[in-house]
Amino acid sequence: MHPLLNRILRGEPRAVARALTLIDNNAPDKRALLESLYTYSGKVQVVGFTGSPGAGKSTLVDKMIDFVRKQGLRVGVLAVDPSSPFSGGALLGDRVRMTKHSTDPGVYIRSVGSRGGLGGIGKSTREMLYVLEASGCDVIFLETVGVGQAELDVMQVADSVVLVLTPGAGDDVQTAKAGIMEIAHLFLVNKRDLPGSDTLIQELRLMLHEKTLLRENWLPPIVSAKAVAGEGMEELWQALTRHYEHLHESGFWEQRRRNRHRDETLKLVDAALSEYVRKRAKEDTEWKRILEEDLSQDPYQSAENILTNFPWKQL
Amino acid sequence: MHPLLNRILRGEPRAVARALTLIDNNAPDKRALLESLYTYSGKVQVVGFTGSPGAGKSTLVDKMIDFVRKQGLRVGVLAVDPSSPFSGGALLGDRVRMTKHSTDPGVYIRSVGSRGGLGGIGKSTREMLYVLEASGCDVIFLETVGVGQAELDVMQVADSVVLVLTPGAGDDVQTAKAGIMEIAHLFLVNKRDLPGSDTLIQELRLMLHEKTLLRENWLPPIVSAKAVAGEGMEELWQALTRHYEHLHESGFWEQRRRNRHRDETLKLVDAALSEYVRKRAKEDTEWKRILEEDLSQDPYQSAENILTNFPWKQL
Repeated sequence: MHPLLNRILRGEPRAVARALTLIDNNAPDKRALLESLYTYSGKVQVVGFTGSPGAGKSTLVDKMIDFVRKQGLRVGVLAVDPSSPFSGGALLGDRVRMTKHSTDPGVYIRSVGSRGGLGGIGKSTREMLYVLEASGCDVIFLETVGVGQAELDVMQVADSVVLVLTPGAGDDVQTAKAGIMEIAHLFLVNKRDLPGSDTLIQELRLMLHEKTLLRENWLPPIVSAKAVAGEGMEELWQALTRHYEHLHESGFWEQRRRNRHRDETLKLVDAALSEYVRKRAKEDTEWKRILEEDLSQDPYQSAENILTNFPWKQL
Repeated sequence: MHPLLNRILRGEPRAVARALTLIDNNAPDKRALLESLYTYSGKVQVVGFTGSPGAGKSTLVDKMIDFVRKQGLRVGVLAVDPSSPFSGGALLGDRVRMTKHSTDPGVYIRSVGSRGGLGGIGKSTREMLYVLEASGCDVIFLETVGVGQAELDVMQVADSVVLVLTPGAGDDVQTAKAGIMEIAHLFLVNKRDLPGSDTLIQELRLMLHEKTLLRENWLPPIVSAKAVAGEGMEELWQALTRHYEHLHESGFWEQRRRNRHRDETLKLVDAALSEYVRKRAKEDTEWKRILEEDLSQDPYQSAENILTNFPWKQL
């Protein structure tokens, strides 16, 4: 059992902060920590917020923190910026939020950059969630700054993905089509007082009608809000709760947990094999010849030479 | 031999474009194409341009295209935006460049997004370089939009990395310290007419004095320029040529080629093993039990169970 575990389970902010830093730094005892935490995972709803910069995600998340705190719930927040090499500090709009919520023991906020890198930001985000789950958070918000591939990877670890859209961004629905519409469980039309919000909602409804967005027996609801005024937070929370219930009732929650266990295990097996391959590449004379001397072969041919000359298929 | 090969070797723009698209789409005959191209690789200098948004990279690359074209050289350009899911089109400042150079058969320009994803944008960039090299380019420019982890990954495939800095960005040198200074082979101070450029150059000189940036027996030179007026292009080109010569004379060019062959081969071995593991995970009863049923174990334990129960160590 990792020495931090008990303090994390009691929700001590400093223990949580240290555990997150330990993961971020890929510290030697990271694995021991994760093993200790694993039992406590898989129960808390992780809500991802994504959407174009300027859609008002930071404000929305801020107001949602206020909302869930008023319900007496504890909340963890990870603000992930794959384009930044910095973690842990107060980046983006987080400075404001951090200051505002810093005296509230029921809120953990953390900025995550891509510094760790090992296995991608999706992996380290997943690992940080284990800490927040064990610390007694009732819900976890996961926020990304953009909508690129790295952000999509991060959203894979969320149970419920909220796509934040705004009227007037014009090509929002069009742009967003490239992969992002498909991962959303809920469309949030922010800044609903702006002209064009009706049109945007109309467009979304049309898309939903086509039924192509039906996944896991769930058709994403459309919620409108004006985050800056705190309007629409209750509707959003209710929709999220419905999705959480749906995941449980339909059995998808359990299935996802199973898939996650499977995927993470296989990735660890991959990593172990890859480590073995690299070790052998340094030690085995024949491998060294193939890898470093026979450059007339292209890498595809060299890889085939390694794989056929060695009986890995009889594993 | 891939049917496109001969047309690529003759430098036919449409064949080059089709080959790049084929790689971008991860088409079934991608491997056959890459195998055909491999023999022609490893000779052309790939120059990477990186730096904060607003440093003037696009303008700089544009002017450098003009410069090398006047020397009668053919040039390939990959503009990589890891935060965009779109490839192939005319994004960012490329629209201008593409229009300007579109009638010049000695220039290939291509925007690369992260759509492919498989193996990361670094991998697909590397693969696209094979096409440009075989097409007879004398030099290849590689440009990224930002300075995050994905951009650093892209820069790994460049032979010479130019870090573009501007005075007035103020914290440039400080910010850039996080990993980016270490990969630069050349510092380009752009917008040299702006106040603060002397200070910036001074700061860089101080850093260089500390010798921590000496790598592969090479201390990055500092070149100043005013790209928008086309000033400094010759100095930049000369510095790049010196680095190219240095890589050859020192033996590092050959060594890097060797390392690249080694790394690519091992990655292909990894991929084959990973594919095997996933296949077995679907078929082997014992693996299925470990992976999908015994959820009381954490993934680390499950991976260990798979690895100890199966004699992969006797490979």
